[in-house]
Amino acid sequence: MEEKLQVAGFQAGAVKAGIRGKDRLDVALIYSEVPAAAAGVFTTSKVKAAPVLLDMEYLQGGKAQAIIVNSGIANACTGKPGMELALGTSRLVAGQLGIADELVLVSSTGVIGQQLDLSIFSNCMKPLAASLRKDGFSDVARAMMTTDTVPKTARREVQLSGNKKITLLGLAKGSGMIMPNMATMLSFIVTDAAVHASVLQEMLGQSVAKSFNAITVDGDTSTNDTVLLLANGKAGNAEICSLDSADGRLFHQCLDDLCLDLALQIVKDGEGATKLITVHVKRAASRQEADQAARTVANSSLVKTAFFGEDANWGRIIAALGRSGIDVDPDRVDISFDEVLMVRDGLGLGPQQEKLATSVLKKKAFSVVIDLKNGQSEAKVYTCDLSVEYIRINADYRS
Amino acid sequence: MEEKLQVAGFQAGAVKAGIRGKDRLDVALIYSEVPAAAAGVFTTSKVKAAPVLLDMEYLQGGKAQAIIVNSGIANACTGKPGMELALGTSRLVAGQLGIADELVLVSSTGVIGQQLDLSIFSNCMKPLAASLRKDGFSDVARAMMTTDTVPKTARREVQLSGNKKITLLGLAKGSGMIMPNMATMLSFIVTDAAVHASVLQEMLGQSVAKSFNAITVDGDTSTNDTVLLLANGKAGNAEICSLDSADGRLFHQCLDDLCLDLALQIVKDGEGATKLITVHVKRAASRQEADQAARTVANSSLVKTAFFGEDANWGRIIAALGRSGIDVDPDRVDISFDEVLMVRDGLGLGPQQEKLATSVLKKKAFSVVIDLKNGQSEAKVYTCDLSVEYIRINADYRS
Repeated sequence: MEEKLQVAGFQAGAVKAGIRGKDRLDVALIYSEVPAAAAGVFTTSKVKAAPVLLDMEYLQGGKAQAIIVNSGIANACTGKPGMELALGTSRLVAGQLGIADELVLVSSTGVIGQQLDLSIFSNCMKPLAASLRKDGFSDVARAMMTTDTVPKTARREVQLSGNKKITLLGLAKGSGMIMPNMATMLSFIVTDAAVHASVLQEMLGQSVAKSFNAITVDGDTSTNDTVLLLANGKAGNAEICSLDSADGRLFHQCLDDLCLDLALQIVKDGEGATKLITVHVKRAASRQEADQAARTVANSSLVKTAFFGEDANWGRIIAALGRSGIDVDPDRVDISFDEVLMVRDGLGLGPQQEKLATSVLKKKAFSVVIDLKNGQSEAKVYTCDLSVEYIRINADYRS
Repeated sequence: MEEKLQVAGFQAGAVKAGIRGKDRLDVALIYSEVPAAAAGVFTTSKVKAAPVLLDMEYLQGGKAQAIIVNSGIANACTGKPGMELALGTSRLVAGQLGIADELVLVSSTGVIGQQLDLSIFSNCMKPLAASLRKDGFSDVARAMMTTDTVPKTARREVQLSGNKKITLLGLAKGSGMIMPNMATMLSFIVTDAAVHASVLQEMLGQSVAKSFNAITVDGDTSTNDTVLLLANGKAGNAEICSLDSADGRLFHQCLDDLCLDLALQIVKDGEGATKLITVHVKRAASRQEADQAARTVANSSLVKTAFFGEDANWGRIIAALGRSGIDVDPDRVDISFDEVLMVRDGLGLGPQQEKLATSVLKKKAFSVVIDLKNGQSEAKVYTCDLSVEYIRINADYRS
């Protein structure tokens, strides 16, 4: 975090509201000095937390000016009182900042099923607004943390046409779960670029598919997963109105890169994780099959446990491919660990290659490359190993 | 195993062939004195081991007289030499017993991707045949074990029409995986009942769906999973030619009961398991949705880890339902642990009920009952908790 975590026209801040004990930042605010084009991608779970439902509605206008986030409770499975809490929180912020209710997005992460009184937010509203400053983003990144072991931030700059430099700043939390139930992935990204809201939404959807939606720690999807992107136009660039324009491509590439950076930070901080593994499926019959195969391998407890044990146990990978539901001919599959070919046409290449493969597995980060020789499509999914520490963390009582 | 593990007209035996070191039973034989009606249910994986492919072909005749099984290597992902090994093994047994090749079924469990020389089997063929005896089944149950901690057997008797008593005897192995890759589930069932082969196959398929196919330890499917059923007619009952006859129903019920007994023995011996959990989904829109919801909950690492921690963490159950892909209204879901209602209409019932639920979770076996209030269908899936020991067992090197 040596880089300056600032973007023109944005302010941020956080306070200790007492949700997570007395001494932790747990409520944070991001504020754009002008209404910003806004986009969001949310959990695909049928069980959506109240703030997710509220944000989905508010974002239909394509604009936002503030994001309030709390850690400690998820406000999920909280029924009517939960929706009233989310609405009430949004109204409090709007009143404090003098902006419209529907420009205030709300986000929560923490224990599912617990109620919270609105007074928590009304009591902290003034100090929260007073905490806003240009360089407050690192406090926000800290306030979003539940059981993350490190705050997660990323920053990118790119030169658009007309010599206009724009900045993208992203925050994320997720995947550390010392307190069970806190599986939520949240990310907030702000930029001073001018981008049309519908283009912003399309770009974000595509970037998330290749980053946040391509990571898996334990295959569980949260009720609160949220990525929000606000673009306030303060950089003064000509508004990006198409993905295919030169500026659109530059901005999109930058967004892709930032999202993947944040997503990989989440996997690396996955509960109990000791390794970052890229599962790369090549030459599948379709993108969908490539993705399904990669996900099945990346979520297999047996595969992930073997990685923890640094065991080049390729039989488990083939077994996972076999049950993945895709069309696979085991007699054509090649498997490599980084550059080391371990399996050719479904057959193991013997102890010499196994020894080389085992040395790859001792690294902190490596790729498993699976060549199906069945088509032209590929997909990458990012995961971590499954360690004894994962069980320890998640078997603890919530209280 | 106080019951006598015998069935009229069947013999069994096992030897130490040296596949798994010098001092372990690792090759076993089951022999029917007359050709028996035979049925089989196999792994749904696209990657099927050579013995599975061979048995599927041989069973098209609806008859079998012997089953040879080895532990130590799975003969999966072994290409052409693997199929030659399976065929050669079958031929050796047929020659030794003086029966047709295609009456000898072959089964293997152990490490994927390792080759084995046929001489292992030719060298042990005579002692294996000499080991056959009426009460040899407990040796077979032991020879099938890989990292199972206990042999698994079950026996049932039932009186059919005409005062004909029939016996069902079942053996199973599975789910102990101290040596990684040995995830295979095998079960062999023999009976002296006379049952038409096509009826036998239909009954076995139905019984397996509710037992062996309703258990999950870690969601991984083996390349070798096999259930075989041989019925030799030695009891002298009138041949069962319909599932809907009185005898058909009696026999089928007995088979259901025996399969569930063996399947639950496998879950209880699941690697690192400390608890047996029944996930019972009620009032789903369809049987398929009930099953899908139950499986998603039963395979969730977060849910299983909470059970290990004896934490009544219902938020994880709701989260799993939300991502299961079924149609679920979170505001209607009830969740109970045994008789203790914990969640009504999607809302937690507070600390008093949580205390009661936590005491249920301290038991060795309990049910999680999920009422979706969304239809008339139900399903049960049986699973175990996910413990620190599971990781320890599966992270070990194969060698």
